[in-house]
Amino acid sequence: MYVGVDVGGTKVLAVEISETGNVVRVARDSTPGRGDPVSELEDALTRAVEAVRDGRPLTGVGVSAAALIEPSGETVRFAPHLPWREEPVRERLATRWGAPVVLDNDAHCAAEAELANGAGRGVGSFLLVNIGTGIGGGLVLDGRVWRGAGGMSGEFGHMQVVPEGLACECGLSGCWEQYCSGRALERVVRVALGSHLDGPEVTAQAKAGDELARQAFATIGTWLGVGLANLVAAFDPALLVVGGGVSTVGDLLLDPARNALSRSLVAARHRTVPPIVPAALGSEAGAIGAALLARRQI
Amino acid sequence: MYVGVDVGGTKVLAVEISETGNVVRVARDSTPGRGDPVSELEDALTRAVEAVRDGRPLTGVGVSAAALIEPSGETVRFAPHLPWREEPVRERLATRWGAPVVLDNDAHCAAEAELANGAGRGVGSFLLVNIGTGIGGGLVLDGRVWRGAGGMSGEFGHMQVVPEGLACECGLSGCWEQYCSGRALERVVRVALGSHLDGPEVTAQAKAGDELARQAFATIGTWLGVGLANLVAAFDPALLVVGGGVSTVGDLLLDPARNALSRSLVAARHRTVPPIVPAALGSEAGAIGAALLARRQI
Repeated sequence: MYVGVDVGGTKVLAVEISETGNVVRVARDSTPGRGDPVSELEDALTRAVEAVRDGRPLTGVGVSAAALIEPSGETVRFAPHLPWREEPVRERLATRWGAPVVLDNDAHCAAEAELANGAGRGVGSFLLVNIGTGIGGGLVLDGRVWRGAGGMSGEFGHMQVVPEGLACECGLSGCWEQYCSGRALERVVRVALGSHLDGPEVTAQAKAGDELARQAFATIGTWLGVGLANLVAAFDPALLVVGGGVSTVGDLLLDPARNALSRSLVAARHRTVPPIVPAALGSEAGAIGAALLARRQI
Repeated sequence: MYVGVDVGGTKVLAVEISETGNVVRVARDSTPGRGDPVSELEDALTRAVEAVRDGRPLTGVGVSAAALIEPSGETVRFAPHLPWREEPVRERLATRWGAPVVLDNDAHCAAEAELANGAGRGVGSFLLVNIGTGIGGGLVLDGRVWRGAGGMSGEFGHMQVVPEGLACECGLSGCWEQYCSGRALERVVRVALGSHLDGPEVTAQAKAGDELARQAFATIGTWLGVGLANLVAAFDPALLVVGGGVSTVGDLLLDPARNALSRSLVAARHRTVPPIVPAALGSEAGAIGAALLARRQI
């Protein structure tokens, strides 16, 4: 039995996958705050894994974390929303769970899942752009996830798109995710309407036909296309896959992005502009990818 | 005997390489204008190849071209400074020269050369950024040049760094190469000094200690570092290699780039910031890489 567990800033999600990579069992827990003890975080992971395991023997567990992870996959260096700091997480969880564990970044895990069983299946190269609170990303080239020399590829959200632009939580300014993310959506709505709606509320209004909510998605969708044009100029992938909570609004986000991509991409007339498609695996992608990694590596 | 021939906007350069990839013979010619007949361009290539060949039998020829080339390597789709338009160049030259020919983009060829015999030797992943009139680039990952799904990776110069910024020859605006290139250098000097100096003149003045010329390099070097930070955020390579005519000024360009990279890179404190090093093979890199490709593929 292979289990994948995804640790984000607010929730822990564990899945068991079948031979074909389908989810057969799910358990959820909440993530302790980043000021809480590491033991509480690891207790929450353990509860979710045990709930999926249900007393059966574990063959291997993959852990997908919103964190900077050493290329060796042993240590979490830093995680903005989690209490881990230079912690030997992989070995500690393996000892605690009595099973082999693999550890990887959540965006890389999601890219593994979309490659194996999602929107990128059979595609030699694609970029995954996950738009949630911020932007996470994965790069698939030659049918493999490119993790980077230091395991830190895919930080698309912190590419600068506006010199001396909006301040970012990362300490830099003008980062792409300040213009295209759940937070950016909320800011656009706040400025245009004066209303304090969260992302899911704006999504519901846009789907219900509200013009200002749709306009807000058009604004961040245009920034999505501009940033994707930069990535396509550099990498020239066959496909662009967009996931994350903000993307659940669908073409109200993706159509403005497609228009901006065609307008902003170098030599668009002389090339095949890659299609922009929605991710297929939703919020379970990280956990599924972690379980797939465990099955491949263990 | 393997020959490589590089076709740029102004010159044709042919080289013969040794078993170890060193240049043993060189010939040069000038490139006809882009309005001239295709036959004149191919005559110039043929003269350069024949001069290097000197009557000996050719085993294979690699052609490196400043052009958009089909992934199959058969056809030049478009080249801004050359007369080729949707031309089956590879087969025509092979027939004319009576030898097998391989055809690839010049920046990809330069990356092959720096990987095999230059600054990227033994490095698993690096980016090559060639700063000349504009910016050309190459991506090496897992020890291989990533050409892109459509053969068009590495168009770093046309990533947008300033929204609604300076107009670019490509038809877009705000492209990186408008802020970091030989042309950008000349513009900075023109604005600061009112003098119309070309890139090599500014380089000579900077090397001689002229403060305004050095300041001009610091300006474009800072933009170099900002753009590299974006690429490192996305790709996380082990090394950054900077080549092209503008880079011959050395650390007067690279030190400001190193400073800007450290300031502009996400999570710089939590990672190894990749070193910025000069390319090793100079203006012969494209021709050398083409010859190496010919040797590998033929």
